[in-house]
Amino acid sequence: MSSYRAPIADIRFVLDELAGLPQVAGLPGWEDAAPDTVAAILEEAGRFATDVLDPLNRAGDRAASVRHDDGSVTTPPGFKDAYLAFCANGWNGLGKSVEFGGQGLPQLVATAVEEMWHASNMAFDLCPLLTQGAIEAIERNGSEALKHLYLPRMVAGEWTGTMNLTEPQAGSDLAAVRTRAVPAGDGSYRIHGQKIFITYGEHDYTDNIVHLVLARLPDAPEGVKGISLFVVPKFLPDAGGRPGARNDVHCVSIEDKLGIHASPTCVMSYGDHGGAIGWLVGEANRGLEYMFVMMNLARFSVGLEGVGIAERAYQRAVAYARDRVQGRAVGLPAGAKTGAIVEHPDIRRMLMTMRAWIEATRAVAYVTAAAMDNAARHPDAEARKRHQAFVEFLIPLVKGHTTEVAQEVASLGLQIHGGMGFIEETGAAQHVRDARITTIYEGTTGIQANDFIGRKTARDGGALAKSVVARMASVANELAASADADLKAIGARLAAAVETAARAADWMVGAYASRPRVAHAGAVAYLRLWGTVVGGWQLARGAKIAAERLAAGVGDAAFLRAKIATARFYADALLPSVDAHYPLATGGGEAALALAAEQF
Amino acid sequence: MSSYRAPIADIRFVLDELAGLPQVAGLPGWEDAAPDTVAAILEEAGRFATDVLDPLNRAGDRAASVRHDDGSVTTPPGFKDAYLAFCANGWNGLGKSVEFGGQGLPQLVATAVEEMWHASNMAFDLCPLLTQGAIEAIERNGSEALKHLYLPRMVAGEWTGTMNLTEPQAGSDLAAVRTRAVPAGDGSYRIHGQKIFITYGEHDYTDNIVHLVLARLPDAPEGVKGISLFVVPKFLPDAGGRPGARNDVHCVSIEDKLGIHASPTCVMSYGDHGGAIGWLVGEANRGLEYMFVMMNLARFSVGLEGVGIAERAYQRAVAYARDRVQGRAVGLPAGAKTGAIVEHPDIRRMLMTMRAWIEATRAVAYVTAAAMDNAARHPDAEARKRHQAFVEFLIPLVKGHTTEVAQEVASLGLQIHGGMGFIEETGAAQHVRDARITTIYEGTTGIQANDFIGRKTARDGGALAKSVVARMASVANELAASADADLKAIGARLAAAVETAARAADWMVGAYASRPRVAHAGAVAYLRLWGTVVGGWQLARGAKIAAERLAAGVGDAAFLRAKIATARFYADALLPSVDAHYPLATGGGEAALALAAEQF
Repeated sequence: MSSYRAPIADIRFVLDELAGLPQVAGLPGWEDAAPDTVAAILEEAGRFATDVLDPLNRAGDRAASVRHDDGSVTTPPGFKDAYLAFCANGWNGLGKSVEFGGQGLPQLVATAVEEMWHASNMAFDLCPLLTQGAIEAIERNGSEALKHLYLPRMVAGEWTGTMNLTEPQAGSDLAAVRTRAVPAGDGSYRIHGQKIFITYGEHDYTDNIVHLVLARLPDAPEGVKGISLFVVPKFLPDAGGRPGARNDVHCVSIEDKLGIHASPTCVMSYGDHGGAIGWLVGEANRGLEYMFVMMNLARFSVGLEGVGIAERAYQRAVAYARDRVQGRAVGLPAGAKTGAIVEHPDIRRMLMTMRAWIEATRAVAYVTAAAMDNAARHPDAEARKRHQAFVEFLIPLVKGHTTEVAQEVASLGLQIHGGMGFIEETGAAQHVRDARITTIYEGTTGIQANDFIGRKTARDGGALAKSVVARMASVANELAASADADLKAIGARLAAAVETAARAADWMVGAYASRPRVAHAGAVAYLRLWGTVVGGWQLARGAKIAAERLAAGVGDAAFLRAKIATARFYADALLPSVDAHYPLATGGGEAALALAAEQF
Repeated sequence: MSSYRAPIADIRFVLDELAGLPQVAGLPGWEDAAPDTVAAILEEAGRFATDVLDPLNRAGDRAASVRHDDGSVTTPPGFKDAYLAFCANGWNGLGKSVEFGGQGLPQLVATAVEEMWHASNMAFDLCPLLTQGAIEAIERNGSEALKHLYLPRMVAGEWTGTMNLTEPQAGSDLAAVRTRAVPAGDGSYRIHGQKIFITYGEHDYTDNIVHLVLARLPDAPEGVKGISLFVVPKFLPDAGGRPGARNDVHCVSIEDKLGIHASPTCVMSYGDHGGAIGWLVGEANRGLEYMFVMMNLARFSVGLEGVGIAERAYQRAVAYARDRVQGRAVGLPAGAKTGAIVEHPDIRRMLMTMRAWIEATRAVAYVTAAAMDNAARHPDAEARKRHQAFVEFLIPLVKGHTTEVAQEVASLGLQIHGGMGFIEETGAAQHVRDARITTIYEGTTGIQANDFIGRKTARDGGALAKSVVARMASVANELAASADADLKAIGARLAAAVETAARAADWMVGAYASRPRVAHAGAVAYLRLWGTVVGGWQLARGAKIAAERLAAGVGDAAFLRAKIATARFYADALLPSVDAHYPLATGGGEAALALAAEQF
């Protein structure tokens, strides 16, 4: 059985060399994020993931969370203790404001740690993740009173948070939300309605749960501009801020899902007994706007789930491939005996594909996190703006592309196990099942792609895309001119792929307005094309740095050589997939629109 | 909820126009396979699939087969009755010899019907499928006594059959089989050993089960040439051929699997109480050879499972996309309201991708089945040989490529459901789980690819591959010269893809001997490349015929236009994936071999 080990060597390489941790640690207020401190945090987090979260992952999948007739929910054995330890160790507050008890570390550092939670136990981490979203909603938009009442408890993890957006008729289209909120006359509201897909809407970790709920006021305009955001606690805080009277919000059922079984996905009913008591967050009718501001981080986290699950699937597959003896690998020296399947070229191909996708998507995610930190605290306003634009460009790739990659990686992990992969005991199948939600929640891949072709590519006439092309081309050209055979090959492949991405962007800018349906039919292919190129760019940067350090005799030579080999494989074997995406991204979807709906 | 409807229009088009059913029905002994008879069979089979098998599929998944402490296994409610009705209606004997009570229909007709069983209830159909394998093993190699004792009962479905190959240490590498068979002196043998992954190794459908078991005789040589095949019935037939004494073979556990839950996957123990009684099939030490002869059909059937599951996932996704109202589709005329998601371009892209893969892989499978029939009964010996070579070339594509495609199609079906796809109640997730085994059993995709690059491509110096290239190029060039814009575009894309396939084959022939590890690292990419091109070839043939019939005013115009549109989409959007596979198929895998095993 494979045990999760945080991939600290690669994480540190990406943090230090690609994402620029030293620069981020130099931003105002982040002096604590010094290399030594960060190294200690990573080690400690890795230990918690290995010792506490990973061992619970499979048992949690098999036991699942269970709802009882009284509406209470029991999480799998061990999960509550793990949650209490998680909070006691301060992990819940890692990236949260110091003002409310958090440790105020940069997003970049929080990202590295968060990857470990996703990898070792995604179903567990969804609770802190949703709490983080609720904290952000209150911190950005809530009154001082709300902030001081709720945030210290939520940052400490004493109370958890949930996000209540979806209703049966309102999924991707939140304009259709129907939950009602009526002013009670005392500054509070009475909430009535049903919400679905509420992650950790009910559980047994803590003695209170803080629901953030989208609802309509009586006089609200129709559509997206008539939705407000409310805080609705499970237990109403008393004068001392302790959980008091039970509020009129209840978990009426939990879903039987394909994966993340330990995470209870609840149907929540508000106001069955007169109305759930809630308080408005920020101004009326601006709820959806508040949500969209938070959505960048939520989408980023789901992309990071993709990285984490993929890493876990990879580690499990490596362990199996080293252990499983079957057949004699082709092309080994005469006299070679039956050996472990890791020696078979096709197993190598699969492991290397997994590895290359993981390293590429991790690098892109961490680079995005560093840009978030710069967008927040860079002293220069122009630089903040530039970083923010870069973040917004990358987010749909981190969410949309990484999660699609995670499907493939998890599936390859299962495939490497052969028949054993189909048996649940092995654990490989769980990663496939858990990963499957990541291309759906927080906006499907299609939604990410619509955002990427529209707001992120076409809206500014392709200017931002062009600026990224220029940065990528510069790296590609530098490598292509190298005397080193690997770097040269990587550079040449990347240069061709960057050129393809640039042409696709040109096409998309033109077609977005003139042929919107064709443009949208190619949107996912366009997103995948760009995601693949941007990943190749980051691996190319890494290969260049690795070669420099090897030449200088600095660092772990085997690790650095593996970085180059992985980048080379990505360039030779994965980057060419841009040529498969290009035709569909640039008009090939027209034939998809040829049939009438009845012809399907 | 979607209900399965056999896609009879497309099946008939493929049978009649692409696979040449009229020609097959003209072969000796198949006069009964006349168009009217076949049409009636398809209708009747479709009804059985819709009315009996499909309604049990989801309940079977949730209930699963259960093993009891006494070693007995109970299948889910309704499955036994369905099985008895299946046999009573003669479906079990459809393609089996008339001599033993079958209906002796061509493989081509059996294929169309079999697709419906896989689509409506794959877990159910595995029992008849394994019985078919056991029947074939006995019929081809068994003594007259064995044949007359077992085959009438197995063809009727009164007794089912199993295939016992795998052992814990012997999966893909059957040379490692350790189960022992000792002559008892009376013409029978005593079998001792453990077999795993035995589909329907125990169940409650029938009062006897006939196990075909690979085992070693005491004096057998090591490796693949020392394995013999035995018949080991659960109950020893008495003098009247009725189940008598209980044999020493027992189901000791069943697996908890990702999918096909209704199908019990058994660990079978032979000889715990003195030895299971068995009889040798054919000659000693030729068991593996007998297995490999049968393997073509087994692999073909698994590929067909891919077609079936993909079709079912497609139908479910279409039903949901037509029903689910969400958002306003982009680019519709001003004033368009919120509508069904089938109007969204990205949903169209997904549905069309599913549809195009299904039609392509179905066509290739049926064309393969027709070649099997010609290989068996064509009056001309040269023609039989030619057809057999074509079958052997296509089988790894039908198995290896179709099942990989089925993963993507089933996953797209889930994705179209959005959040509901992750909820088991919808049924979309079951297709993803069920489909997942198809790339593994009867030889993983890697095993298929090794066969395809070696025996099927390199062994004859690429001669067979070249002959297929010539046939494909001829269709492509004819279409490319067409005045019709769609046919012209399809022809041009196909011509380019065929040329890529030809270049890949040339490379593979050269590298197979000189750089075997690099060749094998690219084998799956090479197989996917070829699978994609061959599918495009068949869709192009279909488009050409559809255009001719439209021009002649014959047939259902909407159906024929949809055939052309689907072929066009395949050509524009899916066929370009050959450019992604090409680099890895032709040397790009070298970087996958650069790391030492310890570096993963």
